Amino acid sequence: MAIAKDSENKAERSCVALDGTGGDHRDTRSVVDAVRFAMAMYPQLYLIIFGSNQLQDDLLKAGVDTKRYEFRLAQQSIPQDESPRSVLKNFPHAAMVKALECVRSGEADSMISSGGTGPLVTLARHILGVQHLGPKRIAHKEKICSELGHGSWSAHGGKVRPCFAARIPVGPNRFALMMDLGANATCSAADLYDFACLGNECAKISLEVDSPRVAILNVGTELGKGNALVHEAREFIEQDRSLQYVGFIEGNRIFRDDADVIITDGFTGNVALKAAEGVADLYSSSGGMKKFFGKLARPEWLLPWQYNGSVLLGVNGLVVKSHASAGHEALAVAVVEAARAAHASLAVNMQRRLESDK
Amino acid sequence: MAIAKDSENKAERSCVALDGTGGDHRDTRSVVDAVRFAMAMYPQLYLIIFGSNQLQDDLLKAGVDTKRYEFRLAQQSIPQDESPRSVLKNFPHAAMVKALECVRSGEADSMISSGGTGPLVTLARHILGVQHLGPKRIAHKEKICSELGHGSWSAHGGKVRPCFAARIPVGPNRFALMMDLGANATCSAADLYDFACLGNECAKISLEVDSPRVAILNVGTELGKGNALVHEAREFIEQDRSLQYVGFIEGNRIFRDDADVIITDGFTGNVALKAAEGVADLYSSSGGMKKFFGKLARPEWLLPWQYNGSVLLGVNGLVVKSHASAGHEALAVAVVEAARAAHASLAVNMQRRLESDK
Repeated sequence: MAIAKDSENKAERSCVALDGTGGDHRDTRSVVDAVRFAMAMYPQLYLIIFGSNQLQDDLLKAGVDTKRYEFRLAQQSIPQDESPRSVLKNFPHAAMVKALECVRSGEADSMISSGGTGPLVTLARHILGVQHLGPKRIAHKEKICSELGHGSWSAHGGKVRPCFAARIPVGPNRFALMMDLGANATCSAADLYDFACLGNECAKISLEVDSPRVAILNVGTELGKGNALVHEAREFIEQDRSLQYVGFIEGNRIFRDDADVIITDGFTGNVALKAAEGVADLYSSSGGMKKFFGKLARPEWLLPWQYNGSVLLGVNGLVVKSHASAGHEALAVAVVEAARAAHASLAVNMQRRLESDK
Repeated sequence: MAIAKDSENKAERSCVALDGTGGDHRDTRSVVDAVRFAMAMYPQLYLIIFGSNQLQDDLLKAGVDTKRYEFRLAQQSIPQDESPRSVLKNFPHAAMVKALECVRSGEADSMISSGGTGPLVTLARHILGVQHLGPKRIAHKEKICSELGHGSWSAHGGKVRPCFAARIPVGPNRFALMMDLGANATCSAADLYDFACLGNECAKISLEVDSPRVAILNVGTELGKGNALVHEAREFIEQDRSLQYVGFIEGNRIFRDDADVIITDGFTGNVALKAAEGVADLYSSSGGMKKFFGKLARPEWLLPWQYNGSVLLGVNGLVVKSHASAGHEALAVAVVEAARAAHASLAVNMQRRLESDK
């Protein structure tokens, strides 16, 4: 457990390793703005920043407090759609790699990147290693696999399929977790069960809910609705007595506090959340008076950039992904998310709970 | 082509058969309100209304102009998740069946129902029959199937897979079509190609676009992003020279006028559009002053109930589905959608264009 530290240290400082190279239109200025904003929002934040000479200069010029960050040169950045094989082979000095290595060594409590989803998941699995289920859930998974005729599944030491989870605002100071948001474009029902186990433990820690309500995203709430994936996932999840399964949930109920943990495959989850963001953006981007009224109309808790920062659950360390297209406010929110998750020792606590298998 | 009529008659009157029994909480009063609202919005509207004695009484009590509708008693309604086999066997007198038969016989130009998606698709396919591709597209489909190693596909006379399409507001008086929105919970890449062909012809007629821009909904715009389904669908669609394929589109760009036709499987499409609606609802449902400001903030063209009314493309007749949970305003909009589609002789014109296969 590389990132374990004394809890007293945690209270003092959260150290986040920042990949300062990723993102769609990432100029160094917007990274600097995000760093300043995040430092203001989270006083215990300390950063190890990886990036170009330009970024280093801009940080100094902007007068960012040098006692609150350390800069390390890492110019190499990884193209969004680089193949897993090439990612592992050709980018040993990339900022993303360096930031992940900081988490593995324990130097940083968490890392954050706006780089490509594929490269980030590949490298995080490789560098940090994957978490595993406890013995009861391995047995449960094998039992349901065999009942469903997926005889070929073997426990692989119970290794889980990592997934991206995000906090979804569902009311004033209330959040749900939704996953997977795109770590896996193709998922099996057993993968969705992994997501439910991960989400369940994560909700206990980060939402402070004793018995999280777990729902599966579907096209309707009736049992017969949907495709084979959700029907099989229901078998896995509903029959695990340690999970409080509350049924199928439709897209229009995501923001309505019907569930604490919303399970879906990475394709659907990504498209659905982006569609929701697209509408929220329309309300806030109409300009002039419209924009003003949009701010007055919005429920206070529904801030578009509050979505930003999905956490990769299921690896041995804290990895946060910011939208490639996020503005500096949104990137700052994701940095703070990384610091908060570190503060809760999320990854270590999750593995402990997964193993204990209650 | 049962619903073909002289275009002069069309200009005079659109006759819509209304299944007055479906919907989540459908009380007869809300159907009556929807009928009055729709008649006010569309002066050429004439309705054949199927429903209960109660509905008949309420229509009379409300003083709805009896010259603009005919009432027929049909008490039987079909449960949302009834199996296809049972739907075909056990509900010969259901309002949904009667309304579809009106379209088949040519008595009505289109029909509308708030009933279950599954029953409606099953019955529409059975009662109206399925449309088919022209010879060029059948050959194209066979070629790509064979290239992809889906050797087992046979043309079945080129019958298409019907899908639900809706008009998505993308700007002032501008719309895109998105499909499938839930007719098929599981889709093959060849099905997505059918949707693209149907959407292309529908956009030419209903959006009046000469060469519609066709996009595939995906988790990213890069070629490597997404699952096998979208990659294979791209092969089918991009290589058909009669379609103007413009690439992958992400969920947050649905409302941004990047494409005229947005193709997705019925599971993803349903969840994504409902998620978008969920956010729009939050802005308009916060009550009191918030609600007032929400109306001022909303771009005029983005009306939540403007989404309502998806058209089932690919059957020989006009079938419109209203949300089960739609309020009376939204139901009225869907009725008007049914009348408009009838006015454009949408189904007949689409089959003519599909056959001509340009």
